[in-house]
Amino acid sequence: MSAVRDRLSVLGIVLPSVAVPAGVYVPAVRAGQFVYTSGQLPMVDGVLPARGKLGAEIETAAAHGLARICALNALAAIDALVGLDAVVAIVKVVGFVASAPGFNAQPAVINGASELLAEVFDGLLATGGAHARSAVGVAELPANSPVEVEMIVLIKE
Amino acid sequence: MSAVRDRLSVLGIVLPSVAVPAGVYVPAVRAGQFVYTSGQLPMVDGVLPARGKLGAEIETAAAHGLARICALNALAAIDALVGLDAVVAIVKVVGFVASAPGFNAQPAVINGASELLAEVFDGLLATGGAHARSAVGVAELPANSPVEVEMIVLIKE
Amino acid sequence: MSAVRDRLSVLGIVLPSVAVPAGVYVPAVRAGQFVYTSGQLPMVDGVLPARGKLGAEIETAAAHGLARICALNALAAIDALVGLDAVVAIVKVVGFVASAPGFNAQPAVINGASELLAEVFDGLLATGGAHARSAVGVAELPANSPVEVEMIVLIKE
Repeated sequence: MSAVRDRLSVLGIVLPSVAVPAGVYVPAVRAGQFVYTSGQLPMVDGVLPARGKLGAEIETAAAHGLARICALNALAAIDALVGLDAVVAIVKVVGFVASAPGFNAQPAVINGASELLAEVFDGLLATGGAHARSAVGVAELPANSPVEVEMIVLIKE
Repeated sequence: MSAVRDRLSVLGIVLPSVAVPAGVYVPAVRAGQFVYTSGQLPMVDGVLPARGKLGAEIETAAAHGLARICALNALAAIDALVGLDAVVAIVKVVGFVASAPGFNAQPAVINGASELLAEVFDGLLATGGAHARSAVGVAELPANSPVEVEMIVLIKE
Repeated sequence: MSAVRDRLSVLGIVLPSVAVPAGVYVPAVRAGQFVYTSGQLPMVDGVLPARGKLGAEIETAAAHGLARICALNALAAIDALVGLDAVVAIVKVVGFVASAPGFNAQPAVINGASELLAEVFDGLLATGGAHARSAVGVAELPANSPVEVEMIVLIKE
């Protein structure tokens, strides 16, 4: 039994299918002991559940949920490549938040991704879901997505 | 004979000289099995061929060509540091697209970089030119460049 | 005696305490031979010394000083995790500059971070403070910070 899948099951989280890349690239790449994911949009079954910017059409609470979906899509990409039980540590998360002028709560949005990682990995990894992170407010994102999240994880040798 | 230079020659691509950094940094750094490039502007012989934002002064097709030049400049930086034949896999591409409000086709722009990598490396590397990628729309770029691309590659030990 | 602390002392630089993360993440993570820092704001004793955008409320010279503080905060995060004497090379710096329309001197701002790295590490590391770098102009940053800087360093095995 996979420890991570067991945890996901306890949490009632179904790992989505890997989102189709928006261009000529792949969802994730293994390089040495690292897996790098592509920037993940909050796609659900191939559809973006919301469009627009924080500080305009999208509320922080809604975007927090979208960032969680981005992280889940990143985990799906990692799982398809190496299996989530190969993950030894979460290394880095970068969160891009489409931000209208005056919106400065990017960290509150990207906490949606970070909290998912804690739920999934705390107690399973030596460092739990802990990771370094940057969160920035960008002008526009692909398909008018409010959020995009990319991730680097360390895997077993 | 270098396999990559042979391929470039067949493609009619001349590797440019390494672009002069816009600040106090270097074009690329080797660290363990990785080479990280600096963010590359689409400089041609030290001159930016276009300035402005997508969704305003710059068309997607033109920016697609500029992203290709950025990727070529990144390859030049890698070549000068370790030689392109040392490259084992392309790991990650990040594309920053200067975006006016309402422009959301960043992936179509950054495909210019990704497609160049496929042309150069498909058939030469086990994973071809495949890479993870993020593409985001930023407010402004250095020198009013429409595009900036950075890259991580894996090299021989 | 720590070589880096000795250098800092000669430069009259006091390493700050590690800035409290703005969300559910950690200041830095070790992964293999790398340390990744989180995006660092120019916090001084937990307070942001300036807010606003380049090209509007904030001058380039002031932001150059803020980028230096960001880099110092990144070094503090690395020091707390592995000790600065473990650093073998600076690999990558990414600088995010909150930019009003028409501001394109992001490299001049992020030079504040790069120059600090040269001051601290030149003569101490084989490659000095040299690093790859990307500098981009984003729409908004957390807490209306003018600058955010993240860093990757290589450490002893």
